[in-house]
Amino acid sequence: MTPTITAFERSPDRGKGLARDMRVRWALEEVGQPYGVRLLSFSEMKEPAHRALHPFGQLPTYEEGDLTLFESGAIVFHIAERHAGLLPDDGNARARAITWMFAALNTVEPPIFDRVIATVLDRDKAWYEQRLLVVEDRIRERLGELSSRLGACLLSRIASVNGWANFPVVLAMPTGLTARSTRATF
Amino acid sequence: MTPTITAFERSPDRGKGLARDMRVRWALEEVGQPYGVRLLSFSEMKEPAHRALHPFGQLPTYEEGDLTLFESGAIVFHIAERHAGLLPDDGNARARAITWMFAALNTVEPPIFDRVIATVLDRDKAWYEQRLLVVEDRIRERLGELSSRLGACLLSRIASVNGWANFPVVLAMPTGLTARSTRATF
Repeated sequence: MTPTITAFERSPDRGKGLARDMRVRWALEEVGQPYGVRLLSFSEMKEPAHRALHPFGQLPTYEEGDLTLFESGAIVFHIAERHAGLLPDDGNARARAITWMFAALNTVEPPIFDRVIATVLDRDKAWYEQRLLVVEDRIRERLGELSSRLGACLLSRIASVNGWANFPVVLAMPTGLTARSTRATF
Repeated sequence: MTPTITAFERSPDRGKGLARDMRVRWALEEVGQPYGVRLLSFSEMKEPAHRALHPFGQLPTYEEGDLTLFESGAIVFHIAERHAGLLPDDGNARARAITWMFAALNTVEPPIFDRVIATVLDRDKAWYEQRLLVVEDRIRERLGELSSRLGACLLSRIASVNGWANFPVVLAMPTGLTARSTRATF
């Protein structure tokens, strides 16, 4: 059965990759699974009809017959379990790949997404600029740790496909890190 | 082979459940898998020996023969894949349970953990109290959405086992929500 996902009618970042349907689209394209897309406005995303699919009024969602999923990580994992090619076959290699999937969502993304949230929730506050400095220090520290493990070259590619490259703090990373190994060691 | 996990020598929250080894211990206890625990101080957690296991200098880690994992979600999932009882057998039910696992880590926890981070990074700032108000509004909104889907009773139990019940903002939730259904509908 052809699944249907939801995506923004007009992405807040104008389609630069920050909206989370991008990961799901990418996984579906990688495995060659045809899919439908239902476009939503920001206000439709918060209405009861959509909240019945996604309790937090966000996107993407994934509908396939009787099954409705939300959370981009869970949807990508569901696709990876039903199609070959996205996760290794070997048990230990698979567990390591899943570890990095959780790390991307739960350890790397949150400080970066905090910057997005700060630009929405804190922009009108007198302390906005000072808060940005704190947030960007955290991003630098986290991406520095990631780069130490993966190498600056791979980090630059990851940043680029995730839309993080739109942030000056991320753009500044590769230059500062080119002296390090660019060979991934994970 | 008996796995070894890492945990804090002295938990920053004095063992109230906020340290992330708790989920892993709970999963191991549920399935009856014996395990060893290596205790770490906060400074040991940031040293190269530990960073070789965990690139972000955090805990828990999970070592089992040649396999080293990090990220509490990935470790719990690894345990659930190798033992019966933590995830449903039916494919769709399993995908739904995994969706909630991602939601817990990636949508529910981040605003709550933001409050912990604010108390560390922003405490000495003149705008600390104002920032807490913004953070707590976000927690209230997210937990309100969660409660609308799961019911206040179940939310109260989740909050309690995750150590969130230590936060006044979470403690205030059940009273405000008791008028709603307490029947889980997920």
